[in-house]
Amino acid sequence: MSDTRDMTTVRALRWLDSQDSPAIEVLDQTRLPAVETVLTCTDVPQLVDAIKRLAVRGAPLLGVAGAYGVALAAARGDDVPAAAAALSGARPTAVNLAWGVGRALAAWRTTVERTGPVPGINTAAQAALAEAKAIAEADAAASAAMAEHGMELVGPGARILTHCNTGSLVSAGEGTAFAVILAAQRAGRLAKLWIDETRPLLQGARLTAWEARRAGIDHAILADSAAASLLASGQVDLVLTGADRIAADGSVANKVGTYGLAVLARRHDVPFVVVAPVSTVDLSTQDGAGIEVEFRAGEEVASLAGHPVAPAGTQAWNPAFDVTPPSLITAIVTERGLIKPVTAGNLQRLRAGAEDSTGPQPARYVER
Amino acid sequence: MSDTRDMTTVRALRWLDSQDSPAIEVLDQTRLPAVETVLTCTDVPQLVDAIKRLAVRGAPLLGVAGAYGVALAAARGDDVPAAAAALSGARPTAVNLAWGVGRALAAWRTTVERTGPVPGINTAAQAALAEAKAIAEADAAASAAMAEHGMELVGPGARILTHCNTGSLVSAGEGTAFAVILAAQRAGRLAKLWIDETRPLLQGARLTAWEARRAGIDHAILADSAAASLLASGQVDLVLTGADRIAADGSVANKVGTYGLAVLARRHDVPFVVVAPVSTVDLSTQDGAGIEVEFRAGEEVASLAGHPVAPAGTQAWNPAFDVTPPSLITAIVTERGLIKPVTAGNLQRLRAGAEDSTGPQPARYVER
Repeated sequence: MSDTRDMTTVRALRWLDSQDSPAIEVLDQTRLPAVETVLTCTDVPQLVDAIKRLAVRGAPLLGVAGAYGVALAAARGDDVPAAAAALSGARPTAVNLAWGVGRALAAWRTTVERTGPVPGINTAAQAALAEAKAIAEADAAASAAMAEHGMELVGPGARILTHCNTGSLVSAGEGTAFAVILAAQRAGRLAKLWIDETRPLLQGARLTAWEARRAGIDHAILADSAAASLLASGQVDLVLTGADRIAADGSVANKVGTYGLAVLARRHDVPFVVVAPVSTVDLSTQDGAGIEVEFRAGEEVASLAGHPVAPAGTQAWNPAFDVTPPSLITAIVTERGLIKPVTAGNLQRLRAGAEDSTGPQPARYVER
Repeated sequence: MSDTRDMTTVRALRWLDSQDSPAIEVLDQTRLPAVETVLTCTDVPQLVDAIKRLAVRGAPLLGVAGAYGVALAAARGDDVPAAAAALSGARPTAVNLAWGVGRALAAWRTTVERTGPVPGINTAAQAALAEAKAIAEADAAASAAMAEHGMELVGPGARILTHCNTGSLVSAGEGTAFAVILAAQRAGRLAKLWIDETRPLLQGARLTAWEARRAGIDHAILADSAAASLLASGQVDLVLTGADRIAADGSVANKVGTYGLAVLARRHDVPFVVVAPVSTVDLSTQDGAGIEVEFRAGEEVASLAGHPVAPAGTQAWNPAFDVTPPSLITAIVTERGLIKPVTAGNLQRLRAGAEDSTGPQPARYVER
């Protein structure tokens, strides 16, 4: 991970380089903002548990975490493919997780195949670790590029509404939507940040408010269901969210509540913009209907931190994500530029460009 | 209040008839579902506090509470007009509160004017109390009538989504939207009740789930922001909510989140129906823009069930209500029949009918 981030950013995940006992440190995001606790994962089951519990979370960081998880299994001499499968399965909707896992696994496997299993084990572990580090560095660079491209959509005095948590806690850099928000703040263009509290796990109220405060941003939280009247009141110029998975048609799976927000933004003619790295685009998923949505325990809705809010035993319907159709999305901001309008063709060209890229020059997929 | 309610209903408010020290008992709804505590209000400031804290809440019950509050002030020999003003001002958006207060105050004032202040004080107090009792009885009868009319819109196997809390806790009867839900349950037509948790104060998760459980209804709660994907999934046949105030054009002020739900119901072609007594219709408020929306302390959003969820000192934007335009409302169900479509003309005829009514026959304001 980059060491160049300023004091307002957060170290959400760190690789502990030790020949004897390598480990992955993660900030336990379930305990923020009250307590800043670091969890040390010395094996993959511990990391899988941290991912499942959402102690470590957020699309880009999950890619980084998955890759480091493979490196950890390799360094320990564990069954690397089995560890990779366990990591990928920890959050089925998060395509970045499987992507990061796959990249580190491929680096490990290529090396094993080239050098043979016995002498090559150590080299292969190093290859997996190098790949994880490269993913983390690329993620930090992608954050910076997304911020730059996203700024094209931020006018002066912007009042931005965001959902969930998309900053340094979910990235090896400054994140996705929140990276744009930080850039707007630095440029003096951010008048107000509105933060949906993001039930059930309150990532907005707990985490985004915490990051906004650290960055000195003028902000206020709101109940998710108050966003409708906030939009109706004319106090929002732009809605910015992240994405967990983007299908080939441009459908976006993101934290539950995103879809409703997109419907309301459209009703009130407020641009609804998704900020996500190219790795979030999953061309193998044809459309929104093909996105598997993770359902989580009803207990998350029926209680908070062990405190019941509903009568004991109350059932809850608790999808972690929802799916927003491309017709409601004004633009998708990636590290390679803007996609506007959001069409299958523009997404395909973006992915093709990303895979064939030979230089740092960002591509643009804007139909004027 | 009626004594004929069955065991599944709740005594949310009770007048304690005592010549020496009359009082109003209210179930403290802020402590449900964990604890059932009764607050005894022996003077109006205690009742005003209970109303402000939402210990007693809900449009119809606030009308009853306001009227009993005037009766209490009169019985104690307090300054009745001053007490009435304090009661009306406790919740500015709740038109029923001011309406109930106004009715009991008028009964008191008429008697004082007829009998003169000194000998008439006791008679006037009795007149205010009789008016409060009449309001409570009419409210119970209105619940039953709303349930009957609402059933016209409930098909077999109905899956109903509701927001906030609209049952016996908010009424001297079985409530508004929840009275329809109970009638559907008794008729064997209710397949599922979906309950928005209703942040920030969780009236859905805490109170509606509690009432649904007592009534043996198959139900599940959901985060408010999950309603969008629930509607998209095709698992909702009807959305039913209450109302705090209905303007002359049919705009409905109700618990924050109602407007967003109406937008989403329309997008998914699901009927969005408001159930409210005629007293909720306020012809003196011309349209939605004229409805004063109460803003409440940010602390309600920054904490959940008494536990802080955001960093200390985080600001929150916390409107208690939002306003749904008539164009999004399929029908309004009142004790005097259905209003469909929701137009200024139909509402005017309903109010005129209610004021001129000489018998129990419900009017109908349906344009086929």
